[in-house]
Amino acid sequence: MSERVVLAYSGGLDTSVAIPFLAEQTGGEVVAVAVDLGQGGEDLETIRKRALACGAVEAVVIDAREEFAADFCFPALRANALYMDRYPLVSALSRPLIVKHLVAAAKTFGGTVVSHGCTGKGNDQVRFEAGLSALHPELKVIAPARDYAWTRDKAIAFAEDKGLPIDVSAKSPYSIDQNLWGRAVETGFLEDIWNGPVEDLYSYTADPAEPREADEVVITFKGGVPTALDGRALTPFQIVDELNRRAGAQGVGRIDMVEDRLVGIKSREVYEAPAAIALITAHMELESVTVERDLARFKRSVDQRWGELVYDGLWFSPLKDALDAFIADAQRHVSGDVRLTLHAGRAVVTGRRSDASLYSYDLATYDTGDTFDQSLAKGFVELWSLPTKIASMRDRGQG
Amino acid sequence: MSERVVLAYSGGLDTSVAIPFLAEQTGGEVVAVAVDLGQGGEDLETIRKRALACGAVEAVVIDAREEFAADFCFPALRANALYMDRYPLVSALSRPLIVKHLVAAAKTFGGTVVSHGCTGKGNDQVRFEAGLSALHPELKVIAPARDYAWTRDKAIAFAEDKGLPIDVSAKSPYSIDQNLWGRAVETGFLEDIWNGPVEDLYSYTADPAEPREADEVVITFKGGVPTALDGRALTPFQIVDELNRRAGAQGVGRIDMVEDRLVGIKSREVYEAPAAIALITAHMELESVTVERDLARFKRSVDQRWGELVYDGLWFSPLKDALDAFIADAQRHVSGDVRLTLHAGRAVVTGRRSDASLYSYDLATYDTGDTFDQSLAKGFVELWSLPTKIASMRDRGQG
Amino acid sequence: MSERVVLAYSGGLDTSVAIPFLAEQTGGEVVAVAVDLGQGGEDLETIRKRALACGAVEAVVIDAREEFAADFCFPALRANALYMDRYPLVSALSRPLIVKHLVAAAKTFGGTVVSHGCTGKGNDQVRFEAGLSALHPELKVIAPARDYAWTRDKAIAFAEDKGLPIDVSAKSPYSIDQNLWGRAVETGFLEDIWNGPVEDLYSYTADPAEPREADEVVITFKGGVPTALDGRALTPFQIVDELNRRAGAQGVGRIDMVEDRLVGIKSREVYEAPAAIALITAHMELESVTVERDLARFKRSVDQRWGELVYDGLWFSPLKDALDAFIADAQRHVSGDVRLTLHAGRAVVTGRRSDASLYSYDLATYDTGDTFDQSLAKGFVELWSLPTKIASMRDRGQG
Amino acid sequence: MSERVVLAYSGGLDTSVAIPFLAEQTGGEVVAVAVDLGQGGEDLETIRKRALACGAVEAVVIDAREEFAADFCFPALRANALYMDRYPLVSALSRPLIVKHLVAAAKTFGGTVVSHGCTGKGNDQVRFEAGLSALHPELKVIAPARDYAWTRDKAIAFAEDKGLPIDVSAKSPYSIDQNLWGRAVETGFLEDIWNGPVEDLYSYTADPAEPREADEVVITFKGGVPTALDGRALTPFQIVDELNRRAGAQGVGRIDMVEDRLVGIKSREVYEAPAAIALITAHMELESVTVERDLARFKRSVDQRWGELVYDGLWFSPLKDALDAFIADAQRHVSGDVRLTLHAGRAVVTGRRSDASLYSYDLATYDTGDTFDQSLAKGFVELWSLPTKIASMRDRGQG
Repeated sequence: MSERVVLAYSGGLDTSVAIPFLAEQTGGEVVAVAVDLGQGGEDLETIRKRALACGAVEAVVIDAREEFAADFCFPALRANALYMDRYPLVSALSRPLIVKHLVAAAKTFGGTVVSHGCTGKGNDQVRFEAGLSALHPELKVIAPARDYAWTRDKAIAFAEDKGLPIDVSAKSPYSIDQNLWGRAVETGFLEDIWNGPVEDLYSYTADPAEPREADEVVITFKGGVPTALDGRALTPFQIVDELNRRAGAQGVGRIDMVEDRLVGIKSREVYEAPAAIALITAHMELESVTVERDLARFKRSVDQRWGELVYDGLWFSPLKDALDAFIADAQRHVSGDVRLTLHAGRAVVTGRRSDASLYSYDLATYDTGDTFDQSLAKGFVELWSLPTKIASMRDRGQG
Repeated sequence: MSERVVLAYSGGLDTSVAIPFLAEQTGGEVVAVAVDLGQGGEDLETIRKRALACGAVEAVVIDAREEFAADFCFPALRANALYMDRYPLVSALSRPLIVKHLVAAAKTFGGTVVSHGCTGKGNDQVRFEAGLSALHPELKVIAPARDYAWTRDKAIAFAEDKGLPIDVSAKSPYSIDQNLWGRAVETGFLEDIWNGPVEDLYSYTADPAEPREADEVVITFKGGVPTALDGRALTPFQIVDELNRRAGAQGVGRIDMVEDRLVGIKSREVYEAPAAIALITAHMELESVTVERDLARFKRSVDQRWGELVYDGLWFSPLKDALDAFIADAQRHVSGDVRLTLHAGRAVVTGRRSDASLYSYDLATYDTGDTFDQSLAKGFVELWSLPTKIASMRDRGQG
Repeated sequence: MSERVVLAYSGGLDTSVAIPFLAEQTGGEVVAVAVDLGQGGEDLETIRKRALACGAVEAVVIDAREEFAADFCFPALRANALYMDRYPLVSALSRPLIVKHLVAAAKTFGGTVVSHGCTGKGNDQVRFEAGLSALHPELKVIAPARDYAWTRDKAIAFAEDKGLPIDVSAKSPYSIDQNLWGRAVETGFLEDIWNGPVEDLYSYTADPAEPREADEVVITFKGGVPTALDGRALTPFQIVDELNRRAGAQGVGRIDMVEDRLVGIKSREVYEAPAAIALITAHMELESVTVERDLARFKRSVDQRWGELVYDGLWFSPLKDALDAFIADAQRHVSGDVRLTLHAGRAVVTGRRSDASLYSYDLATYDTGDTFDQSLAKGFVELWSLPTKIASMRDRGQG
Repeated sequence: MSERVVLAYSGGLDTSVAIPFLAEQTGGEVVAVAVDLGQGGEDLETIRKRALACGAVEAVVIDAREEFAADFCFPALRANALYMDRYPLVSALSRPLIVKHLVAAAKTFGGTVVSHGCTGKGNDQVRFEAGLSALHPELKVIAPARDYAWTRDKAIAFAEDKGLPIDVSAKSPYSIDQNLWGRAVETGFLEDIWNGPVEDLYSYTADPAEPREADEVVITFKGGVPTALDGRALTPFQIVDELNRRAGAQGVGRIDMVEDRLVGIKSREVYEAPAAIALITAHMELESVTVERDLARFKRSVDQRWGELVYDGLWFSPLKDALDAFIADAQRHVSGDVRLTLHAGRAVVTGRRSDASLYSYDLATYDTGDTFDQSLAKGFVELWSLPTKIASMRDRGQG
């Protein structure tokens, strides 16, 4: 029996051309797997048919939007995952889920090789292959762009040569990746990092500079996970989707940054992530209200490491599991409502309430009803600063 | 000779009344020390005369605005200091500088006691007293509000009784602290954390929701410290002052948060810090361009600890010194220009350039001229994910 | 009804005298609670009768040795808990368990006040009172030594005056605390930190310098917890008890250190912890074999924080819970055998084997059978060092 | 002009054979560079002559023992560098120094290629090549063992074929690397990790189990660096060398561990590092006496990262520089004497004294003269545990 190659299929030029190319290279058959992560665009059935038209022996399409929201985006939210304090891990979250479905397809269809469209200088190759080596290390990997120096021009020539049913005319000057959690744009004139972004880069967000009415939303969380908007219970996908629309309409969630790639270079990236930014803003504030101080301080280092790890392709890894266990415990009481004003590019918290609140009006107030015993403070302050005091006396003695 | 009390003097009701009160309590003399940290308001000479009129034997006024900017705000900037990822340490930065001048005055005027106006449930008492115990541990401390349960009502009665030349009518519903680096507002209706802030809380910032023209500024940094705006070389104070005006006019730098105080309670705080937020935004991005990845990752934990330590009153401490040494080394190459758009409450980076850039167009580009050798990636990815792969195989074996 | 004071009772002079003293001070009744944590000495029934003879209205004695081993010592072992890399938290582990039983007794007997014998300059007061404030914050606390400056001499005079049935002649020059996990000795000539310890300080360990035959033990772990010695399944208490004897007989586990107390001072401490040191040594090595590298590296910071937190009295705290969740996940595969030679003060690992091992002979060997693909290394090394390389080129350009 | 290859030359079989092999492969000339790091064995002149006899056009020998001790071992000591809490980085410290001299030789002799004897599955290839890419990224690298699958058998055949003046009979069953800071042994029967080490593995240390008289040494430190033994001022090399002999004679410093290599596998390693272990033991204790608590706690994470970074080959890196700046600041007061008993495999601190001590007898003592104010403790304890208390009340309310 000939080898079967399971291909991560997007429906676009590169991966469509890859179908006959991989068949040729391996002498085997190609199974195309397309996963809907909320990226929009063509419907899955159209994509499925194109794969078959390009020569795939099987074409599987999966609506993974709820799974993506619940099992990938929301864990990132609970970790307040912002790589380099800014990037909400849009692409980094999607790759492990795609890997999971590729592996499932390999099992179903007897695949022994997996193929993806990533280049050799980006992060996504790592995310694909680290994920594969965790879930199914026996699978071989072919990445035509990297392993065969496959370029867009070669792909077009190949498509024309083979008469593939693909539109080769559409050409964006940018490299784009998008899903429910956000959208990433790179290359083109952005590679000069002194150039500012231009309006036509954006698709998830309206221009924040344009005057419009503010929007206000109340987000309800339960155990660190959003469960309702404005009192309406919604599914994970619905929450992110609605917030993408509402926060996006206000220009919330644009990010323009220089970023440290795992492969050792810095790159310029422009992102849009309206829902992600709104949700993380709300979640962080609800943590401020419901998470105890020492736990909150330590969680920042856990969150940072979580973000680096997932960015670096290690979603399926022992450390990720243990960090998740820490976070799950830390989220037990992160329940309540956060009121957010969405306007002019900003998501601003204006109120928070929670049955699990650690904010105590009685202890905090300076009005009547204050229950804080100020007489405790003197002893506290003196012992708190005692090590420093002793060190200072030593230093001057040494001076 | 009678005891001399060195009083941190603001010119306001509480500390004016404290002058005769402290004299009475200690049977000694009071030396008033007022420090200009860019808080605005009355001029120093007016304040000096009031202190004397209230009975101080000496009144010292110090213009410490450049010192504050250069030696307190800019080190915080180099540490990207944002307590709980949000609060730029406005009050926390000012207390150690005031302490420094109190200690100097104690030495000049033979002071043996120091007094400040802080309560027993806030952070500032710790910052004062930890600072004093580091710089001059022999000084005794009196905090009338804490140690004598001195309240505003008692102060007014005392002032009227003694016929002190103070206006007792002015009364803000809020407790306010402000200086060059920002402004803090608390208490009043904000103590209900579901209440949103109202426009009249703010003084450093215009309403971000009002339509206006955007402003654009290019900030030049040298070794992590800003040295020029739009090409004009300025002093540290001038830079912060100008950015407060320009970013403030665009509504940049409003913060509304629930915060973990050192004394163990959570409190609601509203801040305005236009220059601080604009500068930190620019500085973080310039670090992204000029600081190597591993260093940048570790520096986040250093920055976090720096912010906690200074928030917690330990400005003068051995750990602070060592963190500063780390940061100083890490800032050696943080030089270059950042272009920032100030608009509608946001400070957005739109360009960065640096002779010390680690961003390499040749390595990053996907265009002609790409010098990145993609053939290296396969080996990298395989060894990068090898520990995870081995663990996954073990896990399944254990299954 | 008069107030009831629940007293942490040791059977010794200080807490025996505290019974009538507390009754006098509070006008209430005293309930004595003695907890056996494996500290040895008198039997519980003798202690119980003494409490009653001294005037307690109730006296409860609890054999908590298995609970202490399983729920306090073994979690510390899983965290490799060594405060300042040396001290296995002997006393710090016992206080929260005593607190738990005090709170239970307060509920059973209607106690409203709790009393303990700690001074105001040690750590144990914090561990008692932080524990109480977590488990039962309504209870008041009296610590006679701290709150009434109660000293040994006062206690003896009081005992003689009241004719209490206590031997007041026995007097150690040291302050000693001991339990199953180890033994702590302080004060006396040890307060001069240049003085070396002398042999008669020790009680759990024989002189390591004396020649004797080595002992060898195989410790079996399951999920990070020891379950058998030399193939014999044992309870947690039995394992620690046997290892205390066997490792103690070889002089293993002596520690002499200067330590940072939570209350801000440094103190000199001498510890003996034969079983704890032997078990931690074995456990760390088994982790080296079964825990993946990134997880192992991060766990070190978790372990360090765990040790600090417990040392600092915060056993019952949200951060402790979340760290425990991390550790529990990280221990899932820490199963297998470790062979240890106990001799001359050292516990030395000489072998380890595990079904969950991540050590792969085939990958590690340099003999025939090597399956490691060395051709992957070049790409790995180049990308691994790329950020450093770029930075070096920049630095020289900047030079 | 033909290419010149600068070879890291040990004088042994592999690198001797590499001389003609590299000349053949590159068509160029070979410059041999041998660096004395205190590894003992043949004298440098003998090695130099052998290189020339094997065909090197130039042979440089460098006595770098003092440089190694002062600039590589002592920085590691200041960082208490123990990878995985155990391994003092013996080989990891030597490679960057060899790289430094290789680069210097490349500049002197016009080298354009560098060669080393490392395999593709160890750490040392990374240390060599990361160091080279930092100090001289233009140099090409050839590692015959890795790049040409060069084995010992091939080397012997090649040597016999060419009639090289090398003794090919000596064959250790182990792979050994040694220098002033210690000695590493791997492979052979040790690859079965259940096998215990045997006595003939060791060369720096006597059998700790053999009865002998203890040795006592007083080590004087200044700024974290040892400067004298028993009151005799010595150079860095002399200190390490003498302690290797004295601590080695007592069997101190044997380590047997499973270790996480950077290339992703676990390996079994046996080390001897008598001086390193004795010095780190003494240094850590002197830090306990002279370093303030918060600084000491944070320094543990800095030390851990320093050790990982150097282990991982990144000696020359921006993060290493910044960590060194932190450590240098933290070491300013680490001065004083530590008395150590060396016996039966253990280096035990028995006394410490320092003009920079933060240990205060007056604050620590429980005898007359106690200056600690216990009345401060109650307030401290209550505020210290307040966040936990509030959280506990919330948790129970949430039930």
